[in-house]
Amino acid sequence: MTAPDRAAPNRNTLWARAAVDELAKSGVDAVCVCPGSRSTPLTVAFAAHDDIRVFSHLDERSAAFFALGRGKRTGTPTPVVSTSGTATANFHPAVIEANQARVPLLVLTADRPPELRDSGANQTIDQQKLYGDAVRHYRDLPEPAADDRKLRSLRTAVCRAVGESTGANPGPAHLNFPFRKPLEPVAVPGDVPEGFADEHPLAATGREDAFVSVHHAPAAPDDDTLNALADAIDGTDRGLIVAGPDDAAGLTRTAAVALAEATGFPLFADPLSDLRYGTHVETAPVVGGYDGLLAAGPLDGDLQAPDVVLRFGASPTSKPLRQYLRDSGARQFVVDPAGEWREATFTTSDLVVADPTKTARALAGRLEPRERTAWTDRVLALDADYWDAVDEFTPEAILEGDVVAAAAADAPDPATLFVSNSMPVRDLDRFGRPRDADITVLGNRGASGIDGITSSALGAGSATDEPLVLVTGDLAYYHDSNGLLALDRCEVDATVVLVNNDGGGIFHMLPIEAFDPPFTGQFKTPHGLDFEPTGDVYDLEFARVETLDGFRAAYRESVDAAGTQVIEVETDAAASHRERERLEEWVASDR
Amino acid sequence: MTAPDRAAPNRNTLWARAAVDELAKSGVDAVCVCPGSRSTPLTVAFAAHDDIRVFSHLDERSAAFFALGRGKRTGTPTPVVSTSGTATANFHPAVIEANQARVPLLVLTADRPPELRDSGANQTIDQQKLYGDAVRHYRDLPEPAADDRKLRSLRTAVCRAVGESTGANPGPAHLNFPFRKPLEPVAVPGDVPEGFADEHPLAATGREDAFVSVHHAPAAPDDDTLNALADAIDGTDRGLIVAGPDDAAGLTRTAAVALAEATGFPLFADPLSDLRYGTHVETAPVVGGYDGLLAAGPLDGDLQAPDVVLRFGASPTSKPLRQYLRDSGARQFVVDPAGEWREATFTTSDLVVADPTKTARALAGRLEPRERTAWTDRVLALDADYWDAVDEFTPEAILEGDVVAAAAADAPDPATLFVSNSMPVRDLDRFGRPRDADITVLGNRGASGIDGITSSALGAGSATDEPLVLVTGDLAYYHDSNGLLALDRCEVDATVVLVNNDGGGIFHMLPIEAFDPPFTGQFKTPHGLDFEPTGDVYDLEFARVETLDGFRAAYRESVDAAGTQVIEVETDAAASHRERERLEEWVASDR
Repeated sequence: MTAPDRAAPNRNTLWARAAVDELAKSGVDAVCVCPGSRSTPLTVAFAAHDDIRVFSHLDERSAAFFALGRGKRTGTPTPVVSTSGTATANFHPAVIEANQARVPLLVLTADRPPELRDSGANQTIDQQKLYGDAVRHYRDLPEPAADDRKLRSLRTAVCRAVGESTGANPGPAHLNFPFRKPLEPVAVPGDVPEGFADEHPLAATGREDAFVSVHHAPAAPDDDTLNALADAIDGTDRGLIVAGPDDAAGLTRTAAVALAEATGFPLFADPLSDLRYGTHVETAPVVGGYDGLLAAGPLDGDLQAPDVVLRFGASPTSKPLRQYLRDSGARQFVVDPAGEWREATFTTSDLVVADPTKTARALAGRLEPRERTAWTDRVLALDADYWDAVDEFTPEAILEGDVVAAAAADAPDPATLFVSNSMPVRDLDRFGRPRDADITVLGNRGASGIDGITSSALGAGSATDEPLVLVTGDLAYYHDSNGLLALDRCEVDATVVLVNNDGGGIFHMLPIEAFDPPFTGQFKTPHGLDFEPTGDVYDLEFARVETLDGFRAAYRESVDAAGTQVIEVETDAAASHRERERLEEWVASDR
Repeated sequence: MTAPDRAAPNRNTLWARAAVDELAKSGVDAVCVCPGSRSTPLTVAFAAHDDIRVFSHLDERSAAFFALGRGKRTGTPTPVVSTSGTATANFHPAVIEANQARVPLLVLTADRPPELRDSGANQTIDQQKLYGDAVRHYRDLPEPAADDRKLRSLRTAVCRAVGESTGANPGPAHLNFPFRKPLEPVAVPGDVPEGFADEHPLAATGREDAFVSVHHAPAAPDDDTLNALADAIDGTDRGLIVAGPDDAAGLTRTAAVALAEATGFPLFADPLSDLRYGTHVETAPVVGGYDGLLAAGPLDGDLQAPDVVLRFGASPTSKPLRQYLRDSGARQFVVDPAGEWREATFTTSDLVVADPTKTARALAGRLEPRERTAWTDRVLALDADYWDAVDEFTPEAILEGDVVAAAAADAPDPATLFVSNSMPVRDLDRFGRPRDADITVLGNRGASGIDGITSSALGAGSATDEPLVLVTGDLAYYHDSNGLLALDRCEVDATVVLVNNDGGGIFHMLPIEAFDPPFTGQFKTPHGLDFEPTGDVYDLEFARVETLDGFRAAYRESVDAAGTQVIEVETDAAASHRERERLEEWVASDR
């Protein structure tokens, strides 16, 4: 590790080293750096730090999504650094996604010194509160100086930002660093007084650990709340546990299983809940077919009406499930560590502001042990029937959901599986059968954009040695094609499943399909792009397949191979949508 | 033209038609639409309007820069439309550039209805004041309704936004449109009462012209100010007119020439001032060599010290010029129609808040006619010597500035020439000799980012039938490679001069060059990208040349040809920088 106190040639170097020192001591082990001049002190300090891996990115938008994906996978923020100017605004989409998906993210923007603001100076914009309310915390840092109090303030501010970006409501934090020239580590006599580090060891060197170690203490519900929950559960055989997209501060698999066993209720596991895949699905009552089941029509009799629903995570991806919950009339407990509402059907009756895992464990301990309820058995039987029906269905064209399902079914164990918006995550929800394999499924479901998908996936992949699979559509692939540069520059390997239906396939599911024009020109937007040459620009092999069998063969070969392969499956969105509807009818007729 | 009042099937359709109707009546003739569902009412209304050309874009970042470039070229805003969510944040870089470069831009974001805000609803983010202080005007529009007062409010708001985005301080304006389903033009019985249009003609149909025609009245300086200016000018032979990067509300060529003739002063014309090229350079005292002259060392004697400087436009691109003005001790009048400071050396002594063209004309009329001063003749002689020296200099490696200079020298007449940051605009400043040809030079010098360059150029190109030339670097080309999609989708042809020095060549000009690592890995960032395959992805021909002569031949062929050609010139940034320095010495020795 570099000794941040020794021989800092000028105040900027001293300052940036102190900031990076605190980041490393706070657990940061990687950074995404975008080249630029004003950020030179930070870049130099990061590059010199032995414990921080530097990922160099040339497009700030992709850089921020890469950092987001990595933070999502690790639970620790990966800072992203840029120079001043519009570079900083390119981070904005990822900042919003991090905010809404509760992903730790630290944005470190360099800025011109205060006297140059609003002056017409080059690359000088108003970076104050640039991301508005989308960040948990913002600080405009003071001007660097070899000053005891200022340096302690800086160290405190960095720890504060890390603390704000993690904890019960993880998200983005933004630190703005004004720097005056010289930005490089050139000697500036007198800038850092001789002996400064010896006279001010705490300011110059910090502590052995972080200057301020932030100890988050996730709260369990109090007794009254636990009793209310237990009473509601004890009073009925008809209950559900619904796990929506998971947060960094979410529900662990073991706690979820313990709760399902204690309540005897089925566990509806969103593909992004981290509960649809894992060894627990062998024994726990994990239901993955709810989306297809509910889309096929109302369930029979009292299956329509659970009495109590325990909800974790964000709002489920499945629209049929959201509608089912809305119409169920059940008492709905939402467990949310941040105390926020993420439930736009407005059916919550009780908000439990507490740590999900602690809540599940405490509740499981509080309940009288009981058998799996008859209601649960009926739900599980329906679910099994659903998967049988899906297996027996023979589509007449490539059903995009089959591609997504195969990518999950044939994924290595363990693996990280990143699914894009708009269709892959929905298709995985409907067609991804729970599997006894340690697959970490991730997606950007905070704001559900199609921007930054590739970068987010590669960032997640950079965090582990697990194989990485990305399932994406052609629009998302195009949108973040710059993100492919990270394959080489950040040394990430992936299998990219590119479902290419030449445009916005999801619009076939919306009423606008009936209005053409403007449907084709403005919504479907076929682009006719040939993505094969991206294999010549970036560090990847490109293969195109035309059948599901061809896909499965190429996919299995890719996940076993080194390097990155993009497997493009050309589909017809309209035909796939028709097959999706035909499968819904098939499921309904089978019931 | 569509009749916006007739048979609107529902309130959203009625509402969006009214908005688009007002835009068209306010002079908007094109729109950039990004596909999405929530924005369906706007998209459908734009697509149905006979007088508005729809440019469909798949990457919102590129879309906004395309709209920026078009607005920069035309002076009229080209609205950019997106769905809700992170799509809107992708506009942010272009919004900031539009703000700082004073380019008319209208951002129309669709939003979820108010009851879904902060609820966890899909693709719902906080879009309130999303761009902070970077917009001239923001309105969160009310919920659509077939309501007289609301529709009049909408029409007024649209006209207001157009008015705010144009005028003395052009820039971006943001309208946020909440829409509730159904978004498509499906019949909703009772939503628009029968006979509504007949009973409320003004609300439903608007006026024949814009609902509110905004009449900007650019102000000339008052007599006292004119007298002060005239006195300062009359009192000296040593004066300069400095024209920085131009605004939509800037100084016209004829007014600039009139002022130069009346004062007898030389006109230092920034490449982005719109004054370096044009028929006027044959007779007017246009100086283009100041950057190279001043970089080569101090001028002789009193050439160092003009008594009075008249400044127009933004801060000059040339750093040597900015330093020269700072150190000159001159009285400096800055004429700025918006009354803002864009002068970070803080040497302004008088700010004239008035229309530049009117000021120049009024001042020219007020002054006693006089001959060109001896001082001016000496400046012009120095300038002529400079260009001779540049002609005589024989570089030992490709000098990037020679490529940029050739692109300007051999550009068709007329043409639009878009120059990227960071080096092309600086190289044009130094090496672009004034030329008697109607070349409109544009660049993004508001915040001087390298983002969105290609899209800005293609947007500018879409506005005229003139040939379009873009001179860009490899980082900018990579950064906005998505913008190349507009070649086909928006039917723009261009000649793209790609100066590829494999990374951030500008960093060779900064002290960080001496610190390696991290110079190569984190600043220079060679990427080794082979851009030739972009020719197979997008609608363009790709050619690579290795010499200046090869470039000139390929370039001349391209500007005469249909379609788009990318001409890549591989250069060595370090070598080019050395040649640049050698040329500075050459110029100095020649003096």
